Amino acid sequence: MKLYELVLDHGRSVSPFVWRARMALAHKGCSPERVAIGYGDKALIAFSGQDRVPVLVDGETVVADSWRIAAYLEDRYPERPSLFGGGAGRDLARLFNHWCDSQQLRTLFMLCCAPTFDLTPARDQPYYRQSRLEWTGMTIEQLREAGSLRQVRAALEPMRLMLAERPFLSGDGPAYADYCAFGGLMWARMTVGGVLERDDPVEGWRQRMLDLFDGLARAAPCAETD
Amino acid sequence: MKLYELVLDHGRSVSPFVWRARMALAHKGCSPERVAIGYGDKALIAFSGQDRVPVLVDGETVVADSWRIAAYLEDRYPERPSLFGGGAGRDLARLFNHWCDSQQLRTLFMLCCAPTFDLTPARDQPYYRQSRLEWTGMTIEQLREAGSLRQVRAALEPMRLMLAERPFLSGDGPAYADYCAFGGLMWARMTVGGVLERDDPVEGWRQRMLDLFDGLARAAPCAETD
Repeated sequence: MKLYELVLDHGRSVSPFVWRARMALAHKGCSPERVAIGYGDKALIAFSGQDRVPVLVDGETVVADSWRIAAYLEDRYPERPSLFGGGAGRDLARLFNHWCDSQQLRTLFMLCCAPTFDLTPARDQPYYRQSRLEWTGMTIEQLREAGSLRQVRAALEPMRLMLAERPFLSGDGPAYADYCAFGGLMWARMTVGGVLERDDPVEGWRQRMLDLFDGLARAAPCAETD
Repeated sequence: MKLYELVLDHGRSVSPFVWRARMALAHKGCSPERVAIGYGDKALIAFSGQDRVPVLVDGETVVADSWRIAAYLEDRYPERPSLFGGGAGRDLARLFNHWCDSQQLRTLFMLCCAPTFDLTPARDQPYYRQSRLEWTGMTIEQLREAGSLRQVRAALEPMRLMLAERPFLSGDGPAYADYCAFGGLMWARMTVGGVLERDDPVEGWRQRMLDLFDGLARAAPCAETD
């Protein structure tokens, strides 16, 4: 197996979508070879028919998109620990995935975008600047001003309410909903640092997530001093 | 079975939490006797040990709180159609319930609060005004200004993304996640009317939800002309 991921300066693996896939792969007991690419290396994943990471290669099979990778792993390796816990769980994990994409990542985007620019090699900075301008209508300098720790924390309220009741978003143990939401906070860890208050139930969960799989996520080079 | 619900002027059943319970009961094939109370009648549900609707009485069992009612029905009537689709589905439905409570209902609250006041019998209006002031720091007049259709629509984005892919939030058929989110939109239907654009996937879903169980929700007196 090979997993293509985006790696910037100082070895920072910044993509929340790649982190979803890395955690899902570890949940299934898979340790893919990791292939680091930069914003300017999209030709290297052209074989996947699109230009975004993560891209998973498993033998003859090529899968792009974090959700498709999770669904592929669940279907291909059904005898290993489940990511979804059945059909109803898969559909509701997809619904939660949409919350992560539309509401959790939106506030994280405002906070992490400029620090991600700072970690982007100079040769790729013009691309990064231009593409973010097209998406948001804002320059990197405007995005740097617009980021708000308070808004990031407020946006996590559904997670906070769940984690005040249960150790994981998926209940008693981690599963795909956890990996999905954790990806966003790994983007922050890579670029900004810890963004949560110490007594926040979401922070307790984040620490448990960092410990999973022998500290897989904790070991990655980051902007945070644990 | 008896279900205690909040009913205001013109027979408007405004509580989103009661609508969650009514739909969950119908999903389980239950048709409880409905007991309408007003804000000033909390003594009538004091037997439940708290002062909010919905309250379900099933023989000797008393259950308050919409989530507890759903969990009770699932456990008590396991042979009937499932609300959660198993343990993983129950936990993820709970997570989605927290999204509804914290992010979906927040914007609906701003929109529906003043129109709900307008439907409150004069004798209960001082209570309503004072309790909302304590919760929000805002008067009814300030809440009337603060409501925003645009913000309500934006807050529904996770639902919109899911419903662009699937007919229901729970996948192919309706289940508790659908009833949970639908409750909020029934509050709007009772007090403001339809709040969605015709070509919004969430509106298509809302129409399907109104049709369920022989039009149970569609038949209720409301502020909307279908």
